[in-house]
Amino acid sequence: VRAAFTEELDGIVESMVAMSRLAGEAMSEATTSLLDADLQVAERVISADETIDQLYREVEERALELLARQGPVATDLRLVVTSLRIVADLERMGDLALHVAKVARRRYPGTAIPPELRGTIREMGEVAEGIVGKAADVIFTRDLALAAELERDDDVMDGLHRALFTVMLGPSFTGGIENAIDIALVGRYYERYADHAVSVARRVTFMVTGERVG
Amino acid sequence: VRAAFTEELDGIVESMVAMSRLAGEAMSEATTSLLDADLQVAERVISADETIDQLYREVEERALELLARQGPVATDLRLVVTSLRIVADLERMGDLALHVAKVARRRYPGTAIPPELRGTIREMGEVAEGIVGKAADVIFTRDLALAAELERDDDVMDGLHRALFTVMLGPSFTGGIENAIDIALVGRYYERYADHAVSVARRVTFMVTGERVG
Repeated sequence: VRAAFTEELDGIVESMVAMSRLAGEAMSEATTSLLDADLQVAERVISADETIDQLYREVEERALELLARQGPVATDLRLVVTSLRIVADLERMGDLALHVAKVARRRYPGTAIPPELRGTIREMGEVAEGIVGKAADVIFTRDLALAAELERDDDVMDGLHRALFTVMLGPSFTGGIENAIDIALVGRYYERYADHAVSVARRVTFMVTGERVG
Repeated sequence: VRAAFTEELDGIVESMVAMSRLAGEAMSEATTSLLDADLQVAERVISADETIDQLYREVEERALELLARQGPVATDLRLVVTSLRIVADLERMGDLALHVAKVARRRYPGTAIPPELRGTIREMGEVAEGIVGKAADVIFTRDLALAAELERDDDVMDGLHRALFTVMLGPSFTGGIENAIDIALVGRYYERYADHAVSVARRVTFMVTGERVG
């Protein structure tokens, strides 16, 4: 029973790492579609979200079955319940990448991002890629030092997010109302994406230590 | 054992209903703070969020303990796991009300909402109140016909959300970039609030039928 449990849990961990990779690719491509006004890439992100959703439902069902069949207790129970939460975060991260791609699609062949904010959006995309990569590593390695690093990445994201507003409300902003709306929303999507990655890291920490963080 | 399980589960349901009530009050007051530029009400919403968070942590711990101690299977397992998800939705709804109140606080003594959009925001507040009230009833009664009603309320919210953008991008909009940013974000908070209420109803439906909806 124990070996079967461990094997099934390993399978769940693998799927979570796969979901992280897909959510990372999605946000990376969404950023490209936004900056390059690339409709084809935007469409790819939008249709690829179904793969993440499907993985989500699969892992969820496997975790529920595992709970029902094996009735794990203590640490094992915590592992399974935490997995259920982590996949919900990852699924949501996929949605947020999709939302970014939808803004790119809505403005095509134009671009939502005026020149003075391209650098900030590019950086937000890079931070997003970095943080989801670390989240995948944390899921796989349960490295709590790495888990703590995500909090700092999230601070960087929050700083970039604030910078968007400073530029939009300053004299150098060349955009209009429509750009401001797009950028406010896109900024929020990147920020929430990073929040969910931090949430993944915190949940792994809770899984390992039994202590709630943040 | 069975009686103890039922009793503990009833306690969890009670707490979820209490959380719904608090999340409803929070959004109702947040709307008031936004429309009346009432700083005191905004501050009250912001500090009251801690109560919802605390209830969330309590219910979560009780549900995890119940899983560990009683190792429920089949329907009972589904009830407990679903509760874990529902409280996460309700906690998030409290956060979204807090975000609305923070916009009101940020603009005080001014107002974020120009006159031509006050009616739409007021309606969004009313739909939010209605939908969270129904979510509480669905949690308590497990009435699936009522659960289906929330999908329609969410459609109404989506329509109001779209109306915000139509006005902001039309000739009658009297606001500037700052207003557009605030309204885009506030609109998103109301829309997500309704989404989470729908999610609660869907989870109850899943709990009852074992069938995934939406």
